[in-house]
Amino acid sequence: MAGKFISFEGPDGAGKTSVITAIQAELEQQLGKEKVMYTREPGGNHISEQIRRVLFDEHNTDMDGRTEALLFAAARRQHIVSEILPALKDGKVILCDRYVDSSIAYQGAGRHLGEQKIWQINQYAIDGLLPDLTIYLDIESKLGLQRIAEHRADQVNRLDEEQLSFHKTVREAFLRLQRENPERIKLIDASQSLPKVISDVKQTIHAKFNDLF
Amino acid sequence: MAGKFISFEGPDGAGKTSVITAIQAELEQQLGKEKVMYTREPGGNHISEQIRRVLFDEHNTDMDGRTEALLFAAARRQHIVSEILPALKDGKVILCDRYVDSSIAYQGAGRHLGEQKIWQINQYAIDGLLPDLTIYLDIESKLGLQRIAEHRADQVNRLDEEQLSFHKTVREAFLRLQRENPERIKLIDASQSLPKVISDVKQTIHAKFNDLF
Repeated sequence: MAGKFISFEGPDGAGKTSVITAIQAELEQQLGKEKVMYTREPGGNHISEQIRRVLFDEHNTDMDGRTEALLFAAARRQHIVSEILPALKDGKVILCDRYVDSSIAYQGAGRHLGEQKIWQINQYAIDGLLPDLTIYLDIESKLGLQRIAEHRADQVNRLDEEQLSFHKTVREAFLRLQRENPERIKLIDASQSLPKVISDVKQTIHAKFNDLF
Repeated sequence: MAGKFISFEGPDGAGKTSVITAIQAELEQQLGKEKVMYTREPGGNHISEQIRRVLFDEHNTDMDGRTEALLFAAARRQHIVSEILPALKDGKVILCDRYVDSSIAYQGAGRHLGEQKIWQINQYAIDGLLPDLTIYLDIESKLGLQRIAEHRADQVNRLDEEQLSFHKTVREAFLRLQRENPERIKLIDASQSLPKVISDVKQTIHAKFNDLF
């Protein structure tokens, strides 16, 4: 039996973590813990973690944007080979917190590295492995940022225009990706209450995989 | 004044190091030390060196071929941005020991990662920056390997078939690259005596840059 690969995407403040936690708990109850894998890059593999340490080393402020994009793609590749592919082979349901669409939205659009170029680099990294289903939690940028500010009181609590503009660019890229890949990427209105969002996500997963939920 | 970017390529045993050393010494005498830069990846920049440490970490035997290719491209990118571009801007003559052609020949062809794919990844890394001139030191594979065996007595002194086959594949890729890029890549017969090879290289550089040699 082949596994199922589900990714979760969305801008900050869309409630991604809460949604995945709920979905994971329900699936584990239904299928057994050993049949569900939660993962996010860099995952637990030592090579991707080493690459992430290079990316987030505070001394590396002179890192070029393309170097960064190549390193993210390298970490993704190893995460796929070391963790995602073996889990798929084992027939697991994989819940992946962000995948290639986030790179395109954040690096390609948000950081102006070019959506098409980031996609090309990532095509090499993923070698055709796209999720069976991508849940895109959509939220209006101002509302998303307000939610972040409320939940993370330790961080700067101010919505400056630059921050808002960045998030709008990222959201537009996610929406474009959804329109271009309507079969794979399903949009969920994340401005709704959390129980309603979770219910919508479960319905969407069930519509794709009749044996889940 | 814009600088000049010269790369040196060739299989092991072609005498690349001896040739570059001689060319560098003569150019430094003619132009002054500050106008000549010898470099090879990862160069002296800390980011590329960190990436190389991930690549050559002996615990990383489970590294995927594509992860490796992306990491090499990332290290190359940062080497370009941190060292080659500033030197070009300063009007220096850059003597670069191996560049993108080696990746295509060794990783793409020799290690079967696909010449076209390695080229695509590297196109993103180099962003159009090809050398003004590439000196390809060509040597018949068996002769190249014999030279290595003679000069490096501490290494295994045996020409097994696998080793020979790998080197032949790499050489064929270099020869193909030269045929496809005859304006940029100039072939020098490296089976000749070292003084003759150096003389040929100087002539080739002069033919491209009338103000050198």
